[in-house]
Amino acid sequence: MKFITATVEHLPAIVRLLTDDEFGATRERYEEPLPLEYIDAFARIEEQIGNSIIVAIDKEEVIGCLQLTIIPGIARLGTTRGQIEGVRVSHDYRGKGVGESLFNYAIDQAKAKGCEMIQLTTDKKRKDAHRFYERLGFVASHDGMKLIISNE
Amino acid sequence: MKFITATVEHLPAIVRLLTDDEFGATRERYEEPLPLEYIDAFARIEEQIGNSIIVAIDKEEVIGCLQLTIIPGIARLGTTRGQIEGVRVSHDYRGKGVGESLFNYAIDQAKAKGCEMIQLTTDKKRKDAHRFYERLGFVASHDGMKLIISNE
Repeated sequence: MKFITATVEHLPAIVRLLTDDEFGATRERYEEPLPLEYIDAFARIEEQIGNSIIVAIDKEEVIGCLQLTIIPGIARLGTTRGQIEGVRVSHDYRGKGVGESLFNYAIDQAKAKGCEMIQLTTDKKRKDAHRFYERLGFVASHDGMKLIISNE
Repeated sequence: MKFITATVEHLPAIVRLLTDDEFGATRERYEEPLPLEYIDAFARIEEQIGNSIIVAIDKEEVIGCLQLTIIPGIARLGTTRGQIEGVRVSHDYRGKGVGESLFNYAIDQAKAKGCEMIQLTTDKKRKDAHRFYERLGFVASHDGMKLIISNE
């Protein structure tokens, strides 16, 4: 298993992972060809310094992914945060330590880029995910609040 | 009252606001001259596309601030998120709608930059903040989890 920063060739596999999920099933659209919204979004990620998607690859197949965004900030004496979004591991590879290895890789990347904190939000309905993050040392000290502002 | 993107000249006032806070008091260091950590952090924010601090100004005084980071992502059909951090309003100006106006300005900025969602985390001990965000329409659907990775 290896970990690399995703390129656009990995995008279909990433969208497939996001779709193959309890909540993602209704939010995502894994189709061929891939909806243009994803291609455009990937280009925007690549344009932004500090924003990347990391994939776990086994036997040339994408088996896990997460997004890591480095966010410099003023609070906490100028702490830079590493923010994690969109964590997924392929069903066939669950319970084998893939998620933990993927996080350890992402945390090393974040440290190398000056982060002193990693943060994420997890849906309160995802009980397994919550326990997984607690095992990694995360503390659920905050509420994660969302406001949809799209006009659609 | 007006809202503008902060420049380094506003930084001491921003740090003063962050320090004058129940939790900030032990985390921040408002001193003259300002600790270099803040100056360096502000430079990193300015270097990152999509990252900015917005200040509310009344009578040439900074009376409120927040950080808005635009984060393109793949999940939710390529949704771009506007992430808010470090929200503060000067004690003397509480209960006068400053926070709400500051948020409305930030939300307009986020929409103009293609965001379809605004997200933030708020410490579970900040009950007033939680109610404030709920009034604005935010839903506490997620847990906000943090992991400190600094070596200090």
